[in-house]
Amino acid sequence: MKVTYRDVKSDILSKITKGEWPLGSLVPNEVDLAETYGCARATVNRAMRELVDEGFIERRRKAGTRVRMAPVRQARFDIPLVRAEIEEKGADYRYSLVSHAVEPAPDWLRARLKLDAGGEVLHLVCMHYADGDPYQYEDRWINLATLPQAREEDFAEVGPNEWLISAIPFSDVEISLSAGLADQRLSEYLGCATGDPVFTVERSTWWEGQAVTYVRLSHRPGHRLTTRY
Amino acid sequence: MKVTYRDVKSDILSKITKGEWPLGSLVPNEVDLAETYGCARATVNRAMRELVDEGFIERRRKAGTRVRMAPVRQARFDIPLVRAEIEEKGADYRYSLVSHAVEPAPDWLRARLKLDAGGEVLHLVCMHYADGDPYQYEDRWINLATLPQAREEDFAEVGPNEWLISAIPFSDVEISLSAGLADQRLSEYLGCATGDPVFTVERSTWWEGQAVTYVRLSHRPGHRLTTRY
Repeated sequence: MKVTYRDVKSDILSKITKGEWPLGSLVPNEVDLAETYGCARATVNRAMRELVDEGFIERRRKAGTRVRMAPVRQARFDIPLVRAEIEEKGADYRYSLVSHAVEPAPDWLRARLKLDAGGEVLHLVCMHYADGDPYQYEDRWINLATLPQAREEDFAEVGPNEWLISAIPFSDVEISLSAGLADQRLSEYLGCATGDPVFTVERSTWWEGQAVTYVRLSHRPGHRLTTRY
Repeated sequence: MKVTYRDVKSDILSKITKGEWPLGSLVPNEVDLAETYGCARATVNRAMRELVDEGFIERRRKAGTRVRMAPVRQARFDIPLVRAEIEEKGADYRYSLVSHAVEPAPDWLRARLKLDAGGEVLHLVCMHYADGDPYQYEDRWINLATLPQAREEDFAEVGPNEWLISAIPFSDVEISLSAGLADQRLSEYLGCATGDPVFTVERSTWWEGQAVTYVRLSHRPGHRLTTRY
């Protein structure tokens, strides 16, 4: 049977977890490991790369490759389009445009996205519903200097997040998660009480250094972002 | 000059972002790409694997490898030890144990961690301070069937998260993020008003199928979890 990188990875992991390779200890070099496992060095290398990526081992310039003392846990969360998120729960998705306006960029937005003075932005407010219940309130700002074609869109049927993906598929992103409270307006749109806790996702994106969009997504009370690994 | 997987990856990315390879289009096979770039097939393969991991392209069994229509954005958040998190901000870290008790596992915890009836857990409440200000309230439960040695620890100086890393370095994890409100008790410990919004991280961990620990971390108002990529 051919030894795969998965075999190598799982054997190394079990050596670490059983304490055979203690935390902080030096990991044998890849050539020796390839010999031990009877596989190609590239196979060992792939296993090691994944173990590094997952925080189990670390490579230090002078100290060599070691079992990590205090793993930095990295949590990966899928952030799908809200349509996909809702449909994956088996619910019907519905989108609704609340308001649509071209405005001078407000100062707080200019600061946040590093926009030049005097630029205009498209300000959209949208609601996303799951089986008819309020799911997410979207407060969206699009930089018209970067995306002048957004001016021609009415966003009546297709939400700005889906539109943006086709307009500018990939970009630099900053995501910030926080807890807020529903004010009067949010409580009306989300169908909750004022003062209810609101899980908030903010995302700013840039495209080759140019500001594209800032969005603040407010979720109905009880919303959770969960991951397993 | 040798062509590296990074060269190949960045060239493919630019083809995608410039629309030369439109969303949903078929990606050429790796053998052809290797010839085009004048590099080994393994080099192309590594570039492609990263592009798949990052959600730019997808492999479908029958439909082949394609540029992804709606990239699932994955956000990675570092979840370091609270000590490291605070020290990275340049603040002084202080730990304090609030309470320590061995108890029968409450029913909600048994359900959550899939514990057998009749088991005992160690229930710890701890505070973490940054420059003397309340930063995080930790409500921690440790399964004594899996970690009987926790019974002997007093957790007076070292917090349970640091202790757990040395006791069981790696495990299956479920992390859930949500927004809550400060009740009377939380408001006292976190130094805020009752009803203030509280960013909450819950983490359950298992070790080879055995429940290890459940923790609920409540942060002072204004806390954010941010990532850039």
